[in-house]
Amino acid sequence: MDSLKIAVLPGDGVGEDIVPDVLPVLDRLAEIHGSVKFDWRRYDWNCRYYLEHGEMMPADGLDQLSDHDAIFLGAVGDPARVPDHISLWGLLIKIRREFEQVLNIRPAKSLKGIRSPLQDGNSFDFVVVRENSEGEYSQIGGRLGTGADEIAVQNAVFTRKAIERAVRYAYQLAASRAKKVTAATKSNGIIHTMPFWDEISQQVAQEDESITFDLQHIDALAANFITKPHTYDVVVASNLFGDILTDMGAAMMGSIGVAPAANLNVNGKWPSMFEPVHGSAPDIVGKGIANPMGQLWTAKMMLEHLGYEDMGEHLLGAIEAVLADGVKTPDIGGTATTGEVIAAVNAEIGS
Amino acid sequence: MDSLKIAVLPGDGVGEDIVPDVLPVLDRLAEIHGSVKFDWRRYDWNCRYYLEHGEMMPADGLDQLSDHDAIFLGAVGDPARVPDHISLWGLLIKIRREFEQVLNIRPAKSLKGIRSPLQDGNSFDFVVVRENSEGEYSQIGGRLGTGADEIAVQNAVFTRKAIERAVRYAYQLAASRAKKVTAATKSNGIIHTMPFWDEISQQVAQEDESITFDLQHIDALAANFITKPHTYDVVVASNLFGDILTDMGAAMMGSIGVAPAANLNVNGKWPSMFEPVHGSAPDIVGKGIANPMGQLWTAKMMLEHLGYEDMGEHLLGAIEAVLADGVKTPDIGGTATTGEVIAAVNAEIGS
Ligand SMILES: CC(C)[C@H](C(=O)O)[C@@H](O)C(=O)O
Ligand SMILES: CC(C)[C@H](C(=O)O)[C@@H](O)C(=O)O
Repeated sequence: MDSLKIAVLPGDGVGEDIVPDVLPVLDRLAEIHGSVKFDWRRYDWNCRYYLEHGEMMPADGLDQLSDHDAIFLGAVGDPARVPDHISLWGLLIKIRREFEQVLNIRPAKSLKGIRSPLQDGNSFDFVVVRENSEGEYSQIGGRLGTGADEIAVQNAVFTRKAIERAVRYAYQLAASRAKKVTAATKSNGIIHTMPFWDEISQQVAQEDESITFDLQHIDALAANFITKPHTYDVVVASNLFGDILTDMGAAMMGSIGVAPAANLNVNGKWPSMFEPVHGSAPDIVGKGIANPMGQLWTAKMMLEHLGYEDMGEHLLGAIEAVLADGVKTPDIGGTATTGEVIAAVNAEIGS
Repeated sequence: MDSLKIAVLPGDGVGEDIVPDVLPVLDRLAEIHGSVKFDWRRYDWNCRYYLEHGEMMPADGLDQLSDHDAIFLGAVGDPARVPDHISLWGLLIKIRREFEQVLNIRPAKSLKGIRSPLQDGNSFDFVVVRENSEGEYSQIGGRLGTGADEIAVQNAVFTRKAIERAVRYAYQLAASRAKKVTAATKSNGIIHTMPFWDEISQQVAQEDESITFDLQHIDALAANFITKPHTYDVVVASNLFGDILTDMGAAMMGSIGVAPAANLNVNGKWPSMFEPVHGSAPDIVGKGIANPMGQLWTAKMMLEHLGYEDMGEHLLGAIEAVLADGVKTPDIGGTATTGEVIAAVNAEIGS
């Protein structure tokens, strides 16, 4: 039987409330399917660790993580104690970048049992492929001048390689779905990097005419997400635009608490990282009401990535059944606790 | 009686369908109120002009425009014939920049008679103050390298002056509204310009504690627009973030066709420009179904800006009454033509 070494980083806030509870669900699934065993290795690198050690992870942290089949992350950040740019760039974004997790894959779809903020009937099922390594999130920039004359500058940097990679991945994904790719742009306002993005995505599009392709400006795209979400299949977007669109997708599902994400390393050199879209939600920590569905659905993406599609489908089926049954945390209109939702998912999985 | 010289630029597409029909409505209002006369001066600078003259406006175009009390614009762009960066940067953005229209004010609120894509009961009433002169929309950038190694770079540039100005304006506006300002940021991902934005907006916020202030990351803010739009009063945002949020606001109202905007010159040196949020909509040009409500509501903002609040309120009242009566173009679920909506507004205005 395969054994999978998984680095478990609960992180901060609700990450610590949820992640430890999710692991037994996966063990149970593994037992039922009998094809794999999980070797969980927990790393408590988070803002508490930072306050004790002055860094978000040990100096050899990346080395330690590299020796795993995947990284299963909760959430990072405790802004009241540690500035976001330290916690996020010292752990989350550091891992994304150093492990070349160049794509961030975030599905969203209407779920039975959750009241969406959209009118009934506005159902949807799309995946956002977010470029995860460059673009607007750069470390290049700074300030100049003083007092009233001070300015700040930041460079957005786009490479042909990264854009091509993201658009190609979107094409692959669309081929197994509804065969439609929409690329998010803003080339009418951002006139250097975005026309570059347009050109390259149009070039990739020409290679495969079986897929319908269009470019939409991010303002119109965000508006269309609200008014006609059913028209999207795969959306490919820059780091920033992908960030915005995926939080919108999460909101459209009814709560950021249910949305999953995969940070994919595609060259096979380092592990990929699986983390839900939600953050550490300091306001509800320790209350037992954090929604575990985002983390569970994220686990489904991890199982799929590791080659255990059957287990992944089994888990997603259980998630959807429990939601449809109405066992829900308060963020999606229920009264269940984190533990009660987990128990219901376990029961649904069977034995 | 005052006489107002207004430069009328119908522009392209539905701009040409709508703008000429809106002017008589304003003449009628002026007649009723008896305090002002409009001196409309039409300038047909648009993509057709470009195809004939190689420029979007004559060399002395800005000079000609400067001699007006305001500019009333329809829409710009005909991407099938003229690349957007030429038409938009040659006319729309050129006027915004050269006339120092440094703020773009875009209100959005739930309207009776229009089915919103949001669930019933998600009502809202907010104004976005968009920084309109700098930020992500810069002319600084370019490309480097060839073939697979090609990259593109673009600088976002933020000045203390412009950020302060936008946040101060948001504060002024909030003082006459629900006393709440939300600043859109992304300082956890965009670590040079956005922390600068945060610092300055927090400094301005400290000057007036009667207003509730918070910073929200653009991803969360976009999600919250969908799930709890009623929590916003005045939102202040960078050029790009403001662009995205205002198209969302328009979509939430039910159609981009109803959303108004004002590009404000605040130093009194040049005219301000009033243009609806929607574009030239080449797909519906000439069909007589373009929604004139965005242009009419935009006219209301112009009247207000010129000091004729009473006329503005009268016009908005008529717009809301006609919508509530169900006289609507197809984009908002009706069957009326542009002309029928205009006629209904005229009738509602009275005589
Ligand atoms: C056409 C485009 C350049 C413009 C902008 O982004 O400013 C438009 O979207 C708007 O919001 O007025
Ligand atoms: C926390 C932040 C830096 C991060 C991002 O913008 O990438 C988050 O919003 C996300 O989407 O994972």
